[in-house]
Amino acid sequence: MRNIVIVGLGEMGASLAKILNEQPENEVIGVDVNDDSLSYAKNNNIVSSVASDLDMVAPQADFIILATPVTYIEDNIRKLASLPLKQEVIITDTGSTKRDIMAVAEEVLTPKEIHFIGGHAMAGTHQSGVMWANESLYKDASYFLIPSSISQTIDIQNILEPISANFMSISIEKHDELMAIISDVPHILSFSLMNTATNQLGDSATFGQYVAGGFKDMTRIAESDPKLWTDVLLSNKEAILSSQALVIKQLQLFSQAIENNDSATLMTLIASAQHSRKNLLLK
Amino acid sequence: MRNIVIVGLGEMGASLAKILNEQPENEVIGVDVNDDSLSYAKNNNIVSSVASDLDMVAPQADFIILATPVTYIEDNIRKLASLPLKQEVIITDTGSTKRDIMAVAEEVLTPKEIHFIGGHAMAGTHQSGVMWANESLYKDASYFLIPSSISQTIDIQNILEPISANFMSISIEKHDELMAIISDVPHILSFSLMNTATNQLGDSATFGQYVAGGFKDMTRIAESDPKLWTDVLLSNKEAILSSQALVIKQLQLFSQAIENNDSATLMTLIASAQHSRKNLLLK
Repeated sequence: MRNIVIVGLGEMGASLAKILNEQPENEVIGVDVNDDSLSYAKNNNIVSSVASDLDMVAPQADFIILATPVTYIEDNIRKLASLPLKQEVIITDTGSTKRDIMAVAEEVLTPKEIHFIGGHAMAGTHQSGVMWANESLYKDASYFLIPSSISQTIDIQNILEPISANFMSISIEKHDELMAIISDVPHILSFSLMNTATNQLGDSATFGQYVAGGFKDMTRIAESDPKLWTDVLLSNKEAILSSQALVIKQLQLFSQAIENNDSATLMTLIASAQHSRKNLLLK
Repeated sequence: MRNIVIVGLGEMGASLAKILNEQPENEVIGVDVNDDSLSYAKNNNIVSSVASDLDMVAPQADFIILATPVTYIEDNIRKLASLPLKQEVIITDTGSTKRDIMAVAEEVLTPKEIHFIGGHAMAGTHQSGVMWANESLYKDASYFLIPSSISQTIDIQNILEPISANFMSISIEKHDELMAIISDVPHILSFSLMNTATNQLGDSATFGQYVAGGFKDMTRIAESDPKLWTDVLLSNKEAILSSQALVIKQLQLFSQAIENNDSATLMTLIASAQHSRKNLLLK
């Protein structure tokens, strides 16, 4: 029997728990600060057993998944380094930025030869909480695995195979650069558009009646959680600042072309965006 | 019998034609440069009759709708000014920017006391062509009406009543300012994000496998038509440049806060975007 401890039973952690707990070789133990989440998970067979403290269950674990918000992941890595763990235990996490988490793991786990592999799945909705546990959340989603200096990604891929994700090994730097332009900067653009429109037009409940699908699409992710996104943006500073500077330069190319009535440049800029977007979902 | 001439049987014009042609008091005549569009419209009862030249049918018209791309709308307004029209004819258009169109109408139609009212519906999909004629395209959509110096909007609202849109009178300036921030600048943001991601990451067919819903939403309108959007952006210059400058300022507030690890400012900026987005679709 493989003991799997999952810390944080939000949508991501609870979905992993639900799928892994259905495999006969696994016993999933859920850890959460919220008692209601624990009893919901237990009553709905999302986990086999529950615990309110990581300390109590970590020593028996073969595999530990840290699925809390980013800052708590770092705290829990430090806590795990101080506990008596099984020698073969593998620890992973689900944080959306990897640089700080990997740094903490290298600092406190690697010297003790505890295996840590960073994880980040391109999955999840706007829902949060254990009741959103969903067996198909990870199906066909890209799932990045970031090896630490002493760990390989092969064992974790075997354990997580039932979630049917597309696993990909990637370096910390490549991961954070990629996230900056495909996730972090798009969020900033969405927040900025929503704020500017409100500053210019007043109450959004009033101007909302005029907007069409484009504006709705462009601002959907502006509804994301402020605390979570403040953490994400601050934990991927350099990559975000450099991608955002490039987007602002691109915006200025548009402004210049409009200013100069330069329809040839506008045609080229828009046609290249159109071409890239058409190819985006081909594979 | 009311004679309605609709010039341009694309999605917008053909949908108007289809609905209006079903009313017993109307006879809709379709005009288009494309013969296939004309025969499709005739064969599918989208129109009652067709003509390849506006000159031939305009003199009998009670109501004329110009539903071509913006630049051709202006050409057709000039052409109409030179034709012998019925004294009570009302002319309208469906162009997404209004300043230049209204200026041409005031220049050539107002002196002859020909009634022109600008129109712009917040409807339409990414589809184009007569086969996308859709009876519910305008249902509950905002439909802006821009009076010219000699025209009221009441008659046109009566004629267009069967499309079940929400009609609103608005000035040219207010219309173009509103469009800049709810439609034009969002398109530029989408084009710019798509181009920057491609410049940074290479072929979109390859990095497309990593992207999640947020990036897909934010780039959906980047697939819009280059010729059409070049025209739109150039026909609403001032309003777009000023809204875009405000968006860039907002982006720079984010950059600064990230640079300074200023989580309080980030929380405030994101929370206000979240609040506005939540209220956007309340009414």
